[in-house]
Amino acid sequence: MLDLHAKYLIFLGGSESAGYAKTGRGIAYWRPELCVGELRLDEGAETVGLPAASLEEAVAAGAKTMIIGLTGIGGKLVPSWTPTLVAALEAGLDLAAGLHHKLKDQPELVAAAERTGQRLIDVRVPPANIEVGTGKKRSGKRVLAVGTDCALGKKFTALALHQGLVDKGVKATFRATGQTGILISGSGIPMDSVVVDFASGAAEMLSPDNEPDHWDVIEGQGSLFHPGFAAVSLGLLHGSQPDVLVLCHQAGRETINGYPHYKLPSLKECMQRNLDLARLTNPDVRFAAVSLHTGKLNEAEAREALKAASDEAGLPAFDPIRDGPAGLADAVLAAGG
Amino acid sequence: MLDLHAKYLIFLGGSESAGYAKTGRGIAYWRPELCVGELRLDEGAETVGLPAASLEEAVAAGAKTMIIGLTGIGGKLVPSWTPTLVAALEAGLDLAAGLHHKLKDQPELVAAAERTGQRLIDVRVPPANIEVGTGKKRSGKRVLAVGTDCALGKKFTALALHQGLVDKGVKATFRATGQTGILISGSGIPMDSVVVDFASGAAEMLSPDNEPDHWDVIEGQGSLFHPGFAAVSLGLLHGSQPDVLVLCHQAGRETINGYPHYKLPSLKECMQRNLDLARLTNPDVRFAAVSLHTGKLNEAEAREALKAASDEAGLPAFDPIRDGPAGLADAVLAAGG
Repeated sequence: MLDLHAKYLIFLGGSESAGYAKTGRGIAYWRPELCVGELRLDEGAETVGLPAASLEEAVAAGAKTMIIGLTGIGGKLVPSWTPTLVAALEAGLDLAAGLHHKLKDQPELVAAAERTGQRLIDVRVPPANIEVGTGKKRSGKRVLAVGTDCALGKKFTALALHQGLVDKGVKATFRATGQTGILISGSGIPMDSVVVDFASGAAEMLSPDNEPDHWDVIEGQGSLFHPGFAAVSLGLLHGSQPDVLVLCHQAGRETINGYPHYKLPSLKECMQRNLDLARLTNPDVRFAAVSLHTGKLNEAEAREALKAASDEAGLPAFDPIRDGPAGLADAVLAAGG
Repeated sequence: MLDLHAKYLIFLGGSESAGYAKTGRGIAYWRPELCVGELRLDEGAETVGLPAASLEEAVAAGAKTMIIGLTGIGGKLVPSWTPTLVAALEAGLDLAAGLHHKLKDQPELVAAAERTGQRLIDVRVPPANIEVGTGKKRSGKRVLAVGTDCALGKKFTALALHQGLVDKGVKATFRATGQTGILISGSGIPMDSVVVDFASGAAEMLSPDNEPDHWDVIEGQGSLFHPGFAAVSLGLLHGSQPDVLVLCHQAGRETINGYPHYKLPSLKECMQRNLDLARLTNPDVRFAAVSLHTGKLNEAEAREALKAASDEAGLPAFDPIRDGPAGLADAVLAAGG
């Protein structure tokens, strides 16, 4: 499995990359203690609020890896970045990225990595030794964030829940399943890149046997109601064999993101479908809470939406951004303790 | 998408391969009109009942492709085959195989293919241009074989059903989703080798828009109740957007093949789960029939098992090996006509 060496320097490119720093912002938000600074190529580049650091300053501050904190722009490695990426390797840093374009497909970077002995780490490449899922029960406790759709807060919910559990002194590990989560946490498996025969096996590998009172907090992917990505969600659900589920939803969203011809399920329908399928590998699975993305609402509207979601689901409902992670963590412990 | 050039010479290796000729036997059984003969390296090799043919005789009889009719033995290309495989390329034949070991990873074969201009066709390699599933309704009719488990007759059922439809003058295409089905039909997509994000998209690509009265008969994979392979089944179900489902089961099987800790679902439970999930992309989906594998039973026991399955499912039940394909084809047309 992937293993990044901290601390990190966050590379943000130049003005061409403005608006695409979601990954860098996630790392700076969730792992500030692992970040020594950010490196921007020009004044037009985005900042994620870290101190500016040159390669030399970063190395002196303990950086071991430069993470390309950008996604999108077609998932491309921009050619004008190359001298800086090569210089980072020469300065003694590993390079890590979650782009579609692989670092290891760039001859100049490969040559520099060989010359310097540094690593090129493409986090969207799954491990080679994944096996077919066995469905065998594993020790330890697991909670999985599932959703009515993609892109409505499953990663944020899992990271917040992990933080909430750690804050309470509970043994917990965040298990990343997508590129940004992997770069935030430093390890994980990119579920979207696994061959489908090994989907549940990858999820089994991601959360191995653990101590009975240890919680794996697993980042969800997709939705069982998504016509493109439901297979990812099901493989992850079966392989994770969660004890506890958290239902993620965005207040007011009515159709699948990018699929206006597909209506979102109701919370009840989404819960029932997840339970029906999850029971295959864990008959005792249950829901603990709703995590509601209310970012587009004012405070009064958000409280109303949270109450409505709680009433519909018959569960406590939180927006971890508004409410902090403690309530969510308590609900998970109450459901699975 | 893969496209094999008929006619075929079936390569069966030597005594080392005896017992592994399932793929060759399937091609000889289902596509005898496309086979010019079989090539065995020694007397200990298995026969699939085709006339013996040398490379020269096969070419003279119109062969364009030599298919390695073997699976298993660790999915390996046996080194002692190499001179014959090279000679086949030099005789003007393409080579096709569905083994885990790729023809294109063998330097001697690659060199011979380049020298002769013949093709090396690894059927377990999915097309490169698969997109994420859209869930958009396509024209034409589709029937998918689903099952309570793996390895209980979904491929045979789909091939028989296709034959039954063609016999009745119905426009129909068999759509292969596994290596043996692909080699039998000459085209298809190996669903087990697709990256999970593209699973439903691969199934959409496999059965494109067609004439309103044309039937795609789609080979099923896995089972929604399989802890290792349910994601394959779900991606195939969503992307196929079947109008009609046929439920495949083996009489007497009680646990998932190789997973003795997993009980098989009842026929009713399996039907309900498939309908619940299939309705996402085709709200009008319905079951037409049960296809029951009764190969281990005598005739009286088989009739009893078929009646019990029919009563439980509330559907006509057939064993297409005992009963031929006509009844199954009629049931599908009645359900989806």
